Amino acid sequence: MQKLKLLFVVVLLSAGAAIKAQEKIVWEISSGDTAHQRILFRQINNVLTAAPDTKIEVVFHGFAIFAVLKDTGYFHQQIQQAHKRGVIIAACNNSLKSRNISKDRVIPEATIVPVSILEIAGKQREGWSYIKAE
Amino acid sequence: MQKLKLLFVVVLLSAGAAIKAQEKIVWEISSGDTAHQRILFRQINNVLTAAPDTKIEVVFHGFAIFAVLKDTGYFHQQIQQAHKRGVIIAACNNSLKSRNISKDRVIPEATIVPVSILEIAGKQREGWSYIKAE
Amino acid sequence: MQKLKLLFVVVLLSAGAAIKAQEKIVWEISSGDTAHQRILFRQINNVLTAAPDTKIEVVFHGFAIFAVLKDTGYFHQQIQQAHKRGVIIAACNNSLKSRNISKDRVIPEATIVPVSILEIAGKQREGWSYIKAE
Repeated sequence: MQKLKLLFVVVLLSAGAAIKAQEKIVWEISSGDTAHQRILFRQINNVLTAAPDTKIEVVFHGFAIFAVLKDTGYFHQQIQQAHKRGVIIAACNNSLKSRNISKDRVIPEATIVPVSILEIAGKQREGWSYIKAE
Repeated sequence: MQKLKLLFVVVLLSAGAAIKAQEKIVWEISSGDTAHQRILFRQINNVLTAAPDTKIEVVFHGFAIFAVLKDTGYFHQQIQQAHKRGVIIAACNNSLKSRNISKDRVIPEATIVPVSILEIAGKQREGWSYIKAE
Repeated sequence: MQKLKLLFVVVLLSAGAAIKAQEKIVWEISSGDTAHQRILFRQINNVLTAAPDTKIEVVFHGFAIFAVLKDTGYFHQQIQQAHKRGVIIAACNNSLKSRNISKDRVIPEATIVPVSILEIAGKQREGWSYIKAE
């Protein structure tokens, strides 16, 4: 009976450790290359398949901003799927402004953030891990 | 009156949070492509415009070492402006040595660090966020 | 004599600071370009020459997976040397599976990890610094 109790405690502690091990990932993509973007979405799927409760925010800026526009993105289906699974899709407002792109062109799944680099740095400061896509 | 006091406390706490939110960013650039270097300096400007008290250190190494030499860099004006605004310009000594570049050729705004990767890793250990330029 | 004691304490404290400053680096490489891989191994050597007790884990994934296969890698000698010096060589299982590569082809020095991104994020969560190779 004591052994059973001990086992129970160990299982509980392990569960606690597993809960703690939830990852939070802020992902940067600035590449306009659709091959790189395709890899990004495959990696997001791989992560969410292995660890479904991973928090993910993808920050699109620079040439990658076109991936989150209604009329230019190649990966709307992948973005919608990721968005449904809780992935935050962030679009850099500076990248929009410097290209004279109206906010109306941004897909509804995306959240507009003022400055991509500050968004990524802030998330790291709050303990998120950083991944730089190709 | 109580409500006013509460509002005052909330405002004070928010101000405190804003002060805490100062970012520290260690930026790595190893690309010798001047297009990538131009993007870097534009991003630094964007960050300092939005959050002027952000601490920034840019570590130039590999092919990017030529950006911080007196006779080869394309962006001396941008570097001088960044330096005046408090941005630390770091040049990797290993990158100099492996190319037989004398330290005399390094611009005066730059600080020479022994090993770029250890500089970047050390800053992260001390709580700085990391950004990898193109 | 008092001065000698003080010096001794200062030396001890400095040694303590040096011990605390040990870096832990998780390195990501996804490039299949052997020029990028050559730079990676040179950087690892630079780091271990300057700070021999640095903990390093290199995560090979994407196109870089071929660097850790018995029949396709160009840098077995460098990998063996790094491995002997304590560098963890990690190979992403998802990268193997998506290319139908049998685990038998992976070099014995490599440790297979399920999902590269989760490995890298987990190490960062545990306080390791992150370096993204070219």
